[in-house]
Amino acid sequence: MTDPSPAPTQAQSSTTARLEAFSDGVIAIAITLLVLEIGIPAVQRTHSLIDALAEQWPSYVAFLISFVVIGIMWVSHHAMFERIASVDRGMLFLNLMLLMGIAFLPFPTALLAEYVREGGQNASVAAAIYSATMALIGLAFAAMWRHLLRNPHLLVGGISRDRIELAIRRSMVGPVVYTASIGLAFISAPACFVVYALVAIYFGSNPSSRVATPQAPVDAGDVTSET
Amino acid sequence: MTDPSPAPTQAQSSTTARLEAFSDGVIAIAITLLVLEIGIPAVQRTHSLIDALAEQWPSYVAFLISFVVIGIMWVSHHAMFERIASVDRGMLFLNLMLLMGIAFLPFPTALLAEYVREGGQNASVAAAIYSATMALIGLAFAAMWRHLLRNPHLLVGGISRDRIELAIRRSMVGPVVYTASIGLAFISAPACFVVYALVAIYFGSNPSSRVATPQAPVDAGDVTSET
Amino acid sequence: MTDPSPAPTQAQSSTTARLEAFSDGVIAIAITLLVLEIGIPAVQRTHSLIDALAEQWPSYVAFLISFVVIGIMWVSHHAMFERIASVDRGMLFLNLMLLMGIAFLPFPTALLAEYVREGGQNASVAAAIYSATMALIGLAFAAMWRHLLRNPHLLVGGISRDRIELAIRRSMVGPVVYTASIGLAFISAPACFVVYALVAIYFGSNPSSRVATPQAPVDAGDVTSET
Amino acid sequence: MTDPSPAPTQAQSSTTARLEAFSDGVIAIAITLLVLEIGIPAVQRTHSLIDALAEQWPSYVAFLISFVVIGIMWVSHHAMFERIASVDRGMLFLNLMLLMGIAFLPFPTALLAEYVREGGQNASVAAAIYSATMALIGLAFAAMWRHLLRNPHLLVGGISRDRIELAIRRSMVGPVVYTASIGLAFISAPACFVVYALVAIYFGSNPSSRVATPQAPVDAGDVTSET
Repeated sequence: MTDPSPAPTQAQSSTTARLEAFSDGVIAIAITLLVLEIGIPAVQRTHSLIDALAEQWPSYVAFLISFVVIGIMWVSHHAMFERIASVDRGMLFLNLMLLMGIAFLPFPTALLAEYVREGGQNASVAAAIYSATMALIGLAFAAMWRHLLRNPHLLVGGISRDRIELAIRRSMVGPVVYTASIGLAFISAPACFVVYALVAIYFGSNPSSRVATPQAPVDAGDVTSET
Repeated sequence: MTDPSPAPTQAQSSTTARLEAFSDGVIAIAITLLVLEIGIPAVQRTHSLIDALAEQWPSYVAFLISFVVIGIMWVSHHAMFERIASVDRGMLFLNLMLLMGIAFLPFPTALLAEYVREGGQNASVAAAIYSATMALIGLAFAAMWRHLLRNPHLLVGGISRDRIELAIRRSMVGPVVYTASIGLAFISAPACFVVYALVAIYFGSNPSSRVATPQAPVDAGDVTSET
Repeated sequence: MTDPSPAPTQAQSSTTARLEAFSDGVIAIAITLLVLEIGIPAVQRTHSLIDALAEQWPSYVAFLISFVVIGIMWVSHHAMFERIASVDRGMLFLNLMLLMGIAFLPFPTALLAEYVREGGQNASVAAAIYSATMALIGLAFAAMWRHLLRNPHLLVGGISRDRIELAIRRSMVGPVVYTASIGLAFISAPACFVVYALVAIYFGSNPSSRVATPQAPVDAGDVTSET
Repeated sequence: MTDPSPAPTQAQSSTTARLEAFSDGVIAIAITLLVLEIGIPAVQRTHSLIDALAEQWPSYVAFLISFVVIGIMWVSHHAMFERIASVDRGMLFLNLMLLMGIAFLPFPTALLAEYVREGGQNASVAAAIYSATMALIGLAFAAMWRHLLRNPHLLVGGISRDRIELAIRRSMVGPVVYTASIGLAFISAPACFVVYALVAIYFGSNPSSRVATPQAPVDAGDVTSET
């Protein structure tokens, strides 16, 4: 990996820079609004707050998972935009779809937190909706990479077609696993938590989001470090 | 369209840049707060969560429409500011009115989601308020373009009077249609949803917000591509 | 006014720029959270939504006033920071106090909206708390100007002592009027709304926040245009 | 202290700059969401609003403490990033953990406000959870400094190993004191408020966050001013 990554961000148009800043804003707000889902339990003086807090454990797990996942999405989004020099109408639209999915996430997160403990059909429905939202967000990422493959003039120079194709294949991991977890939700809703955590760990340790630095440009522009 | 768009953003004053950043912040927050309108239904163990979720379909439709509309507003706002070199007191005030309308939108969105299914007079009132809010936001956009027409020294160089006049005419499409939909609300509130969606599609596919890029400046600064 | 305003923002330290960006973020969020104060009235099918909405008129007035006031505060804050080259610990602390007041505003706004219609002692208390919060925010602004007067090395070059002294005197208008309105609250809470609106109009039309632009630098750096 | 602090921020990679902007966004939102914890008391016409407001004094104290603490965290975070030229995967992960703690803070703040007045076991539990959250946030800061010590290539030039080691030692003050306050919570929950205030004052007056300025670079890059 000796590609010196020719200062891609300098080449960005002002619209691209603003779009990334706007997206960062939406992502930062969505990730911070997650905490509103964790309710303050109303317990009476003679009852135990600690029991009431312990009972709402799915709220903490759902907060943790969604927080990490949105954090990873931010890294992926930034890594993608480091490769983009300009955006067209299609990219604007796809990015808006992506942001809609991320901004929507506090709802399925709260739904999951509320119903997963209950078990039964309602827990499965809540987990299935969470899985479906995540699958759609993943598809939006894949669609953005696909759009870049078809419109290579939007990319900064020196990014090969192979790399983008690999990025597309890898961006399909999320949608495939999350779609499968919709089925799993109707077998075991808590098992979905495990799958969500595993996907987060996979993407969290996934080199596609390894960041470029001037001092250590080893992985700069690298979406194919396993090749 | 051979206008090379002489790097308008470089000419921006720091106040103009900050005003756009502040506006982007308000728009990003308003668009992300929309999700708070979607309530977590409280269903008992023996009842179906999926039925309860299906019953609140207007919440999802209202979220979707308002999200797309605010997204388009962001694009329009950015496209306008790409043409602005400096702002005066009048522009600051009109921009604040615009932001007030956008920051207010979560309220009529929640109102619409809550009352449209009910039918009758209350559904009509909710839709009429949503239409009126959107009409006022559109008028704020039109007033800003009009202010630019009367104060051409605020513009970056090379933007003709004809273009601004066209931008004003086009920015009146929203107010006219939304005002008409106030009347429609009292005939059929759900029909308003269709009108809102159509206006969103019209503006979403409308070249006025086509973005400029260094690599492909074909439409740079273009608010009149249909001429 | 022939001072060419020597590009003050270029001279800003990165900390000053970040502090302004952080402050802009807090202000943008506080102004956008105001809408959460306006509740969706719960009316039954046979009752009138329009009556229920009309009854909560103080919510709209309180939203409008606080929105405009926070908007003006943003302009004032930006106008002040255009004159600041670097910040010290005291400035950081005073700015944090200012932001605390602004971030707190949604609470007295909601209090005012909830209790002003009721009349009696509770309406007076709500209005007095709103007045006191606004007075404290005004004092934070005045304290920041005072700190700049005592630490002129924090300013960009070419800002005279007279100008800062005038800025301090003018920044005391708010605290004086708002403190007086605490007394007025116990005579007539609705009358306070009128005072709040008048103060907003005064500051909104007040040249101290007139913005500088490269093309029209007539008022650049001008905090004393009435002299 | 004659180190001229060689314009560290210029050396920052775009990822580092974006990560700081994203972190600033999350911190600004978390600090502004704190106000939502302060409820509007519902009192009847014949009851006193002022009594109801006075009764919820812990809400104001908790708001004040958390606001100041998050403000100090912003300063510390910015001071740290002024020393960072580039970020690696480990830094991204640790920073995400830090942001999770800060974004979570509105929950223990609301919990503390709700239960501290009640006294007894529940008040202790609420204070202990607040203490534990603060201890974990402090540990995230310490872990980031430790990561920088082990990966000095991430730092801007001219920052000595001694300075980072001092920063680590000082960043352990918070975790140690907050962990001790978990025990104190079970003796006296209100006493924890005093400890929280003292820690805030300690860090607020602590030179590690003294900011660098071009005009007055005396403390630029200074994390060891007591040496």
